[in-house]
Amino acid sequence: MCDTPERVLSIQSHVVFGYVGGKAAVFPLQCLGYDVDVVNTVNFSNHSGYGRFGGHKATASELDTIFEIMEGNELLAHTRLLTGYIPGAEALSVVEKLAAKLRKSKPELIYVLDPVLGDSGRLYVAPDVIPVYQRMLPLSTIITPNWFEVETLTKTELKDMASLRRAVQILHEEYNVPHVVISSIPLKPWLASALSPSILPADWQENSYLLCISSSSASSCANANSHTSPATIHAQCVPLIQGYFSGVGDLFSALLLAHFHPNSKPEIINATPLSEAVSQALTKTHAILLMTHAQAQTLSVEEKLPTDDELDEANPLRKTRRMKGRELALIKGQDLIRGVGIPHVRDMMKWDCFWHC
Amino acid sequence: MCDTPERVLSIQSHVVFGYVGGKAAVFPLQCLGYDVDVVNTVNFSNHSGYGRFGGHKATASELDTIFEIMEGNELLAHTRLLTGYIPGAEALSVVEKLAAKLRKSKPELIYVLDPVLGDSGRLYVAPDVIPVYQRMLPLSTIITPNWFEVETLTKTELKDMASLRRAVQILHEEYNVPHVVISSIPLKPWLASALSPSILPADWQENSYLLCISSSSASSCANANSHTSPATIHAQCVPLIQGYFSGVGDLFSALLLAHFHPNSKPEIINATPLSEAVSQALTKTHAILLMTHAQAQTLSVEEKLPTDDELDEANPLRKTRRMKGRELALIKGQDLIRGVGIPHVRDMMKWDCFWHC
Repeated sequence: MCDTPERVLSIQSHVVFGYVGGKAAVFPLQCLGYDVDVVNTVNFSNHSGYGRFGGHKATASELDTIFEIMEGNELLAHTRLLTGYIPGAEALSVVEKLAAKLRKSKPELIYVLDPVLGDSGRLYVAPDVIPVYQRMLPLSTIITPNWFEVETLTKTELKDMASLRRAVQILHEEYNVPHVVISSIPLKPWLASALSPSILPADWQENSYLLCISSSSASSCANANSHTSPATIHAQCVPLIQGYFSGVGDLFSALLLAHFHPNSKPEIINATPLSEAVSQALTKTHAILLMTHAQAQTLSVEEKLPTDDELDEANPLRKTRRMKGRELALIKGQDLIRGVGIPHVRDMMKWDCFWHC
Repeated sequence: MCDTPERVLSIQSHVVFGYVGGKAAVFPLQCLGYDVDVVNTVNFSNHSGYGRFGGHKATASELDTIFEIMEGNELLAHTRLLTGYIPGAEALSVVEKLAAKLRKSKPELIYVLDPVLGDSGRLYVAPDVIPVYQRMLPLSTIITPNWFEVETLTKTELKDMASLRRAVQILHEEYNVPHVVISSIPLKPWLASALSPSILPADWQENSYLLCISSSSASSCANANSHTSPATIHAQCVPLIQGYFSGVGDLFSALLLAHFHPNSKPEIINATPLSEAVSQALTKTHAILLMTHAQAQTLSVEEKLPTDDELDEANPLRKTRRMKGRELALIKGQDLIRGVGIPHVRDMMKWDCFWHC
């Protein structure tokens, strides 16, 4: 018998139209050669940004039934797990139980957990979801919170380097998360001034770039000196693309899962398996976003009306048309996902002074 | 503005594990460049062949809500429609209403309707589904019934050339179906003896080949002489691969939809847009099946135990393991779907004497 082939279990939302949740994650994983088992936590018409949306939310008991039958049928032998939006604490607890079972039966399971809680200072799940995610963190291999989710999970406001260091430390040490990736932090002056010149772009100004940070804990690195040595940090700046796009985080997490190979030796000096995977995920996500943005520019005037809450309320189709024009160009850009037509990889750079700058 | 890009609406079953329904259809369509909007009529753990399966069935009202919201959001502008397994007459009626609406708003809509009723003499839907499918037939562009579904829809037992001709005629003339594809008819002696030597393989014997027949009605062909001239028939024999594979019909219908270009001029003499699409779908489906079969051969002994109803009942995992080993190798075979590594296309051959042999 040869090695068991890789098999991903993806648990997240499903929408009929557009590319968020599973629709943003599964196709890229398949393109990159993974068999993906797909659990739909909701079955909605479209994402909530359209204003009007609806369908069916899977209940905790429905999810439990599916997992029980799969276990009975010996279909729970996944090598990788990806979880995204899961509505409500009860359903999330069912996923927690499953993740614990998979982790126990296969300690080398690679689990990318995207703790979907909210964005830009606003929680969009019920508050009782937070403690469930906190319990789940130690089950993960990699987590991909945005900056607001980092704040929420660690109860730490990110306002300076000290608080950022503390938050990363809490995730690694209190919650035992081996790998943390914060995919997009606004590059405020306090953050920009802490970056080494090799990371900060020469043309930096506020609101022109986002920062992506990855951190591998010492205990997760094969060559670490001791458990107490600080985590290895990498970072990279990504030009901000104007406009709001949905599903970007879901795509990024899926690509990260696809490209993470913990046992392969990094090709680039100073790189880690995590930083290499982040480099790939970041590069491809950005390439898809550029294609999406370019496509949106070719639309008719009424499909690219700017956000205006008053006008949007008076005519809900203004919003709908704008949203439609900004759905990720995943199908058109599928070659990019396969690595074709990517001129250069945005390599994550080692951020040596992170712990003492 | 350039041409509206192609967009498929796919309505069929979803399973977490394995490749049937939407899981067999959507990825191939995406690989071939189509944006696909995916409606899941059920969300089950795995297909029913495993013995144990379960999850949630979408109700008629859930489906209706999704379509209504999509309409309100101007998201029902599809150029192509694909429908497969839809449980129950009530849910199917909702899809009928939608198909009628799409057809009315876009007369050039390409609708591939797979009337999923049963197989090999056994109905696996409730009998009240049959009249709904009969009402839906005139809405379709292409239908892809198996021989049993042809019998059920036309109330005609296929036992000789006369009954086969009658059934095809009923579909074209009573139900106004422009294109009929019967993907796999057992090649019994009465059928084999009616085939021209160019279609019947020299090594033919009973149970060694299946026949695929396609029929484009005269009125659907641009160059037809009159409405009453008979339909254009093509056929091709496909070697039977031993063992039962699931999702093959779903994959075939999706590939057929992807490759059907009614306004392009066929490259091959005597071909029609339908026969060319069937040639592609047949070739790629067969290539995936060969890969699946080869993969199944490499499995451990207990994953390829032969079907034995008594032993299977005593140990349900016998069946489960066999099923698992026979899931379509869609991901591994994705290059085949893109047309890479296909040594030659199994061209459908014109069956000139169909109407009078």
